[in-house]
Amino acid sequence: MRSFEAKNRTSVDDIKSLRLITAIKTPYLPDGRFDLEAYDNLVNMQIDNGAEAVIVGGTTGEGQLMSWDEHIMLIGHTVNCFGGTIKVIGNTGSNSTREAIHATEQGFAVGMHAALHINPYYGKTSLAGLVSHFDSVLPMGPTIVYNVPSRTGQDIPPTVIHTVARSPNLAGVKECVGNDRIQQYTDKGITVWSGNDDQCHDARWVSGATGVVSVASNLVPRLMRQLMFEGKNHSLNSMLMPLIEWLFKEPNPIALNTALAQLGVSRPVFRLPYVPLPLPKRMEFVKLVEQIGRENFVGDKDVMILDDSDFILVGRY
Amino acid sequence: MRSFEAKNRTSVDDIKSLRLITAIKTPYLPDGRFDLEAYDNLVNMQIDNGAEAVIVGGTTGEGQLMSWDEHIMLIGHTVNCFGGTIKVIGNTGSNSTREAIHATEQGFAVGMHAALHINPYYGKTSLAGLVSHFDSVLPMGPTIVYNVPSRTGQDIPPTVIHTVARSPNLAGVKECVGNDRIQQYTDKGITVWSGNDDQCHDARWVSGATGVVSVASNLVPRLMRQLMFEGKNHSLNSMLMPLIEWLFKEPNPIALNTALAQLGVSRPVFRLPYVPLPLPKRMEFVKLVEQIGRENFVGDKDVMILDDSDFILVGRY
Amino acid sequence: MRSFEAKNRTSVDDIKSLRLITAIKTPYLPDGRFDLEAYDNLVNMQIDNGAEAVIVGGTTGEGQLMSWDEHIMLIGHTVNCFGGTIKVIGNTGSNSTREAIHATEQGFAVGMHAALHINPYYGKTSLAGLVSHFDSVLPMGPTIVYNVPSRTGQDIPPTVIHTVARSPNLAGVKECVGNDRIQQYTDKGITVWSGNDDQCHDARWVSGATGVVSVASNLVPRLMRQLMFEGKNHSLNSMLMPLIEWLFKEPNPIALNTALAQLGVSRPVFRLPYVPLPLPKRMEFVKLVEQIGRENFVGDKDVMILDDSDFILVGRY
Amino acid sequence: MRSFEAKNRTSVDDIKSLRLITAIKTPYLPDGRFDLEAYDNLVNMQIDNGAEAVIVGGTTGEGQLMSWDEHIMLIGHTVNCFGGTIKVIGNTGSNSTREAIHATEQGFAVGMHAALHINPYYGKTSLAGLVSHFDSVLPMGPTIVYNVPSRTGQDIPPTVIHTVARSPNLAGVKECVGNDRIQQYTDKGITVWSGNDDQCHDARWVSGATGVVSVASNLVPRLMRQLMFEGKNHSLNSMLMPLIEWLFKEPNPIALNTALAQLGVSRPVFRLPYVPLPLPKRMEFVKLVEQIGRENFVGDKDVMILDDSDFILVGRY
Repeated sequence: MRSFEAKNRTSVDDIKSLRLITAIKTPYLPDGRFDLEAYDNLVNMQIDNGAEAVIVGGTTGEGQLMSWDEHIMLIGHTVNCFGGTIKVIGNTGSNSTREAIHATEQGFAVGMHAALHINPYYGKTSLAGLVSHFDSVLPMGPTIVYNVPSRTGQDIPPTVIHTVARSPNLAGVKECVGNDRIQQYTDKGITVWSGNDDQCHDARWVSGATGVVSVASNLVPRLMRQLMFEGKNHSLNSMLMPLIEWLFKEPNPIALNTALAQLGVSRPVFRLPYVPLPLPKRMEFVKLVEQIGRENFVGDKDVMILDDSDFILVGRY
Repeated sequence: MRSFEAKNRTSVDDIKSLRLITAIKTPYLPDGRFDLEAYDNLVNMQIDNGAEAVIVGGTTGEGQLMSWDEHIMLIGHTVNCFGGTIKVIGNTGSNSTREAIHATEQGFAVGMHAALHINPYYGKTSLAGLVSHFDSVLPMGPTIVYNVPSRTGQDIPPTVIHTVARSPNLAGVKECVGNDRIQQYTDKGITVWSGNDDQCHDARWVSGATGVVSVASNLVPRLMRQLMFEGKNHSLNSMLMPLIEWLFKEPNPIALNTALAQLGVSRPVFRLPYVPLPLPKRMEFVKLVEQIGRENFVGDKDVMILDDSDFILVGRY
Repeated sequence: MRSFEAKNRTSVDDIKSLRLITAIKTPYLPDGRFDLEAYDNLVNMQIDNGAEAVIVGGTTGEGQLMSWDEHIMLIGHTVNCFGGTIKVIGNTGSNSTREAIHATEQGFAVGMHAALHINPYYGKTSLAGLVSHFDSVLPMGPTIVYNVPSRTGQDIPPTVIHTVARSPNLAGVKECVGNDRIQQYTDKGITVWSGNDDQCHDARWVSGATGVVSVASNLVPRLMRQLMFEGKNHSLNSMLMPLIEWLFKEPNPIALNTALAQLGVSRPVFRLPYVPLPLPKRMEFVKLVEQIGRENFVGDKDVMILDDSDFILVGRY
Repeated sequence: MRSFEAKNRTSVDDIKSLRLITAIKTPYLPDGRFDLEAYDNLVNMQIDNGAEAVIVGGTTGEGQLMSWDEHIMLIGHTVNCFGGTIKVIGNTGSNSTREAIHATEQGFAVGMHAALHINPYYGKTSLAGLVSHFDSVLPMGPTIVYNVPSRTGQDIPPTVIHTVARSPNLAGVKECVGNDRIQQYTDKGITVWSGNDDQCHDARWVSGATGVVSVASNLVPRLMRQLMFEGKNHSLNSMLMPLIEWLFKEPNPIALNTALAQLGVSRPVFRLPYVPLPLPKRMEFVKLVEQIGRENFVGDKDVMILDDSDFILVGRY
């Protein structure tokens, strides 16, 4: 189904050079549909503050709560509005190889620059199955493989990465296992992004990572840019650590969703099974904003402490 | 769900000024998926030969045989590759208001410049229902309403058009009922495109139509451009008439699909319920090409007479 | 995908012998989802009053406004709850052969006794295409072919029926063209049901039709049973005629939906593009009920004149 | 959307009393569609050998590789063909609350007797989110909650189970964390099924479990029946252990799929990302069959050692 028009517009090397990739949040309208105005604003703030790419519909963007047509539409929309300015990486991975094939084919057809591929979570498979899964989608375009055993229940071991790295389309690995694993890969010339905000400074400046796929950059893109571009900076890293810890006390993107609503840049609408952080945690966030400085966060409204009744939780949408 | 990024990039007036709109064919791979390479080539030939817009997934493009995710993907793909050069009109109409709403929202989100909307065929509805149907989608962006009672089983009467014309988003009407009806509308300042290749010359030069939504332009775009742009030309119109008659002896796009395969610009793959024209009709086409001149048709291979066994018919895809 | 468990539980001959088949209405909840309690009640009233089969998701049941998963679910639900008492005929036809194949396969898998198949409306096709379309689904189980050119824009001519009648799975034809056409078929031993309530008496008693696929039987099942089972009855037929005329002044099921809401057996919820009949027509219905006798209609509440504000119209659901 | 016809046909107590529940395998045709003939045969063998319920589209049945319409169809099919003889538990869980709601509603509508619900794998959520997720579906009918942290990446802690146990619809828990956890629940009167074949004997006879949701019973249903019904039997348990170990060396259902193909009861067709066990493992299986006795396994053909080339792996289906 490949199109020569869309092909080769972004080389694998372009993807390999990205340092700050934001796993962008998906904001919702009160009825649970996408709030594209808010989304466009979020992406524009990323661009203005130095992010070089966004991952659309990652776990942070709640791709797992989208129907595939919503997901591909959001990729196409992002390419159409921002694809000239920023790289658009579609999370077209799935635990079903069929779905991964179909979504990846469609994502590249609507112009995404690269695909993010997870190993088959929940269903899992053998190492041979992992290779077959990735090999089914690698020929389609630039690809980042994503390893996060705490979500998938299964580590992608280096042997699988080395096998799939035979494909010229493998741009690299988003690795959450830690900086030792990252070092192993970078020693062998494989491009890696840290998938952990709390480890990304060292990953970048000590372990050879190219950059980060960041959640925190949804909130403080300029600081994350600084962290990835301007050399070792332990004081900045330390300053960010309480925010990062706050962000990941509950499964992401629960805290991020809560924070962006408190910053006034997205409506306080949650698609279930996500529910907002409780009030004490919301109060903590206000303090974190004050400590780091409101001006370092996205948006220009005062940070708010929302009431429980301000939040809308949607199960049917 | 509206995006301000995507909004207003094409004004209703831009749509109103289009003279040659091609209802572009969708070509297939042998397994029934879209052949995007062939598609891109077809669109490029339209651009090179003077078409100003394409309708994606019209009845000619077999939108009725697409799943909606395929359909929206093809719109997004076309915008992404060609949207800077040519207007992309998505046929996001449906006999289900729910589907029309969802598809139109998605089509505009991925950047289509205008929507084409049919009245609810097969299920049909009352005049009040027609107005409710169109009013559900008109606020989303520039819209062309399509009237083709021979397919829908129900004429959209002028009273309905005049009612929906209160929306500033109504760009105009694609009208297949005939040139008298067109004259009625153009007398009142409503933009109309002829939906009939055999009547479009007179529609344009006698009845006030702005242009044509053409099937024949898939084959002879330069001649259709001439017919719409360069003044009355009865001899050209007469020269084209045998081709146009050949094109519509069976329900469109049966003959078009057969012709494009014979011209070597699409694979001879049919999605059922369409089947190729029989051999005698295929031989007639070769003669028509010779009469009109191979150089006036798309593609550069010799026109072929395909065998029955050359065609692939797919029911599952 | 065929299952031997499900297979052969209903013979084609069982289908051929049905005289009163109701094209059952689909009732909705205020949010547009199916109201299964109301549905079950409607089906039970059909059973109690002598209908022998229901068509699930026909045009009357608004199959055209269902997603396929809703549609197959409703077929499965009907089989599961009532399949031991009444024949369940799923309208798994489509203008897309792919969709017809998929839905029919699924419908038989969940136990439907027969499929109803329409020719490809709107998209249309050649006679050879019609045969290919029907031949794609006939091997799957007992099948009724449905001809209604006023909706499809294309008559299924006798030559096509005679061709597909070679399949032992063809149970017969639901014919709306008129009683002369019906006579033509019954003369040749083809089973036919009239698709027109106003012609079904003569179809049955003069033209050899086996019975009727009825809309009116949603309202007055016992009277329609009488009409089909108890011999010529011109006075009953005449008595019903004003109701039948009322039912079809606007495209079906607009009046039926309005009537069932007025009888208190379904909520006054319309999926667009259907909208209720205007007030004067609703007042006419009350008079028709009085003339024919409330006891002949389904339900046991007084017939109501609903206000415009009582109706809920849903576009997203 | 609830139907009173379908409601109350199975009580929660009926579900609570089940001892042998088979997580039934889904067999495929060479093109990847369901092989319903093979499926029906598998279910019949379960019934004949004493299983009391099947889980349709569990992880063993590869629900994660099904589209929802396939999944609901398979539930409806199973109810329709076998629902009078065996309990049908639909795995209508999802990591998306929306999907879980929709699928569960549909599953009960087509007659399933109970739902199996997983916590949101991969995406995960907070404890409050877990409760909200389960509370969204519990009102729909009898429900088994499924805890398998090795797949989901997140344990469902007892506090959540105790909270959702307030619903009268909670039939019990399918627990894979181990027999201590099971004991904790059974001490408090909560029904539990072991989700681990290797622990189920002790779970049942020592820790108070009601029974097992078994994978191994796909192969040796009569022996698993004996294990659950006929009192402590360490020698039978020991005899089965090598088979059970063989079954779970690679992520289930890889070995099960391989075994059933070798037993000649399903075609050797794998949906990716699953691939067959390698030849040495297939040879081991033949020995295991000989040790345990061919007559204790399903099917009546000789057990085969299949070649690599015998297997068909499908990515698009």
